[in-house]
Amino acid sequence: MTALNHTHAPDARSWVASANAVGTDFPIQNLPFAIFKRRGSAEAMRGGIAIGDQVLDLQALASSGCLAGHALAHSAAEAASHSTLNALMALGPTAWSALRHAVFDLLASGASAEVQEQVQACLIPQADVEYGLPAHIGDYTDFYTSIYHATNVGKLFRPDNPLLPNYCWVPIGYHGRSSSVQVSGQPIHRPRGQVMAAGQTVPQLAPCARLDWELELGVFMGPGNAPGRAIPLDAAPDHVFGMCLLNDWSARDIQAWEYQPLGPFLSKNFGTSISPWVVTMEALAPYHCAMERPDGKQDDVDYLRSENNRNRGALDIQLRIGLTSDTMRAASQPVHWVCQTSYRHAYWTLAQMVAHHTVNGCNLQPGDLLGTGTLSGPTLDQAGALLELTQGGKVPLTLPDGQTRTFLQDGDEVTLQGWCEKPGAARIGFGECQARVLPATPTQT
Amino acid sequence: MTALNHTHAPDARSWVASANAVGTDFPIQNLPFAIFKRRGSAEAMRGGIAIGDQVLDLQALASSGCLAGHALAHSAAEAASHSTLNALMALGPTAWSALRHAVFDLLASGASAEVQEQVQACLIPQADVEYGLPAHIGDYTDFYTSIYHATNVGKLFRPDNPLLPNYCWVPIGYHGRSSSVQVSGQPIHRPRGQVMAAGQTVPQLAPCARLDWELELGVFMGPGNAPGRAIPLDAAPDHVFGMCLLNDWSARDIQAWEYQPLGPFLSKNFGTSISPWVVTMEALAPYHCAMERPDGKQDDVDYLRSENNRNRGALDIQLRIGLTSDTMRAASQPVHWVCQTSYRHAYWTLAQMVAHHTVNGCNLQPGDLLGTGTLSGPTLDQAGALLELTQGGKVPLTLPDGQTRTFLQDGDEVTLQGWCEKPGAARIGFGECQARVLPATPTQT
Repeated sequence: MTALNHTHAPDARSWVASANAVGTDFPIQNLPFAIFKRRGSAEAMRGGIAIGDQVLDLQALASSGCLAGHALAHSAAEAASHSTLNALMALGPTAWSALRHAVFDLLASGASAEVQEQVQACLIPQADVEYGLPAHIGDYTDFYTSIYHATNVGKLFRPDNPLLPNYCWVPIGYHGRSSSVQVSGQPIHRPRGQVMAAGQTVPQLAPCARLDWELELGVFMGPGNAPGRAIPLDAAPDHVFGMCLLNDWSARDIQAWEYQPLGPFLSKNFGTSISPWVVTMEALAPYHCAMERPDGKQDDVDYLRSENNRNRGALDIQLRIGLTSDTMRAASQPVHWVCQTSYRHAYWTLAQMVAHHTVNGCNLQPGDLLGTGTLSGPTLDQAGALLELTQGGKVPLTLPDGQTRTFLQDGDEVTLQGWCEKPGAARIGFGECQARVLPATPTQT
Repeated sequence: MTALNHTHAPDARSWVASANAVGTDFPIQNLPFAIFKRRGSAEAMRGGIAIGDQVLDLQALASSGCLAGHALAHSAAEAASHSTLNALMALGPTAWSALRHAVFDLLASGASAEVQEQVQACLIPQADVEYGLPAHIGDYTDFYTSIYHATNVGKLFRPDNPLLPNYCWVPIGYHGRSSSVQVSGQPIHRPRGQVMAAGQTVPQLAPCARLDWELELGVFMGPGNAPGRAIPLDAAPDHVFGMCLLNDWSARDIQAWEYQPLGPFLSKNFGTSISPWVVTMEALAPYHCAMERPDGKQDDVDYLRSENNRNRGALDIQLRIGLTSDTMRAASQPVHWVCQTSYRHAYWTLAQMVAHHTVNGCNLQPGDLLGTGTLSGPTLDQAGALLELTQGGKVPLTLPDGQTRTFLQDGDEVTLQGWCEKPGAARIGFGECQARVLPATPTQT
């Protein structure tokens, strides 16, 4: 895990005034990465770092001379000047940290007037940009690291035996679809699929009637491993670039009919939304904490067990998810938050996900995306999916406009937020991951 | 489906003598694509077409002037001049066919001496080349289209209820791992993984003791679909570039412990081997045939049902798989073939795989790879996996060197072959897909 250093000092301030605003997601202690261009422009997409309400253009910064004398930081900024962050992700933690520290110094209140003038020329208001996917995602893997989610969902299918025997030993995961991962702001079409209605013997093709979200974090991989070579648990953090918000859209009626025996397929692969901003592991360093397993289990299989992982492997990232209906939006009502939880409740840590994924020799590559799985917490108001919040669609939620929801309606907008805060550390945030549900497109058959 | 034309004429011959040899996989009626370079050279990888025992270098051909006056064929050859075939795959069937017909005419025995001289300069012996992956594989999806395989495997787990109720309605599939797809000739490390031994309550990390193959065909996608827009069943063939041999390596002990509830993960993602040669759908056109379902079922859900698909949607591709042990290889013994079957037994056609994959709006992209799933036929000697052939490891196979096998040993080499032949059509083949099993690498934890 990254050691704390002066970039984590809670009283550090920036000469970019908006970065010092109370409650900002993007103070100088954060410095997350995204891919962006000016909205509607013909510019090439390139990497940027968030500071307050601005984006620091890394292509412009690399050309500016501001990084003269910081060779490693300069190469990292150049690697971040392309249309994806894969080249930056491939460089590894020393280069990432060099760039972070150099950018911190350029943006810190102590920077000279000359530096401020040069860097100011590389800033673009976030209000004026559009975002792309942070990386070309070679492979996307989704895990299942919340024992509360596994138990809540298991209860709906197997009331007497909610948790399968492998859960507390195997960090369960499966491969998802890379091509349909999309960045916040892009809408999602309601999927069609085969569903078997209760009491019927013949399935039908129909628009999904039980469209759900899943509140997750995404993990972007840094340097990968060669085929056949595992990444050991305590080396795993050096292979992780950073984290984003992730909504694993799920079609529960399609899932129920298709998932046996090979797992979810069309119920998931129509779309996955992620936040544009990727918060680095160095920025998250103050928020590492001990694992908190409800069963207190410590006897993991060797390759998943280390003292460091147990004591510092979890991350206290606050998360919430909510929705806005068409009528709420028309009345300018704010998001109706329905779940708030923390990533610290995960049964398996990020390092355990990486060590497990590679223990068989499977090769990870820079820019690969891992999902944590739905991050439900111990109580029902901390449940990260409508399936759980509405107890399988039986207990509707009531929205501020008087409408009710068991599952999502067309026009609903789903918003995820994430942030870290605690006494003695700077608050940092993930921005938002938001997407609206569009009606199913007409069938063409 | 592609109509038959003069490139399918069974009596067509080439001035490349080896293309006319009895039993060759690569007569002039085939013309499959691969990515190659001269072995051990510093050359760039580029596209080639097999003719007899030669590779036609498409980069050289595009520069040669031989395609002057064939604008579409020339652009297709240029698209095939890069290190992957993705750009060619994106062009679609009109361009693929134009290149096929132009190359056919250049290689046909009627070609002028001048043409033969020019084209001869673009030929490289297959014996002198090494191959790369045919495409950058954005996503890899594996299906489960053999009802015989599903039943054989189901019997091992659920003797009274081998086939799940969704099987005859849903073309079951799941997402596999793209990063570990490798081309024939590259060895595979035996994976390690968590296994729960019989009678134990604590799992252990161990090298896989039940390493298996799966005999499959791979399908390379051509033009994709936009998110939210399905590909209708009868349009599906226009989106498919071609097919290759595929070995879906499987770790049965790891699979048994990990697969519930989200499907196979580490038991599969350590490696998938494919043949270098991709046989185009136009070359396969003579081998389309009627679907042959053992249950005679015809009432598929609308989007999976058409007369054309039922009457001509299957493909009679002969397949066999076998192994060579260390001692057999030392004694120069040939491959011991243990299974021969045909793709025509598949319960779901290639077009149904594509229509189903996209019915929810999931976007396919050029170069995506679909696996058919293990292609077991109706009888046990047509079973495409050791798990089936040895009845779950209970009935060992005996090799010509006297050794026995339930599952694979280190040093075993696995070979897949595929070909099409019938009266009145030219025999065409897929070449081979071959890989050797290496010992598990030492653990690093």
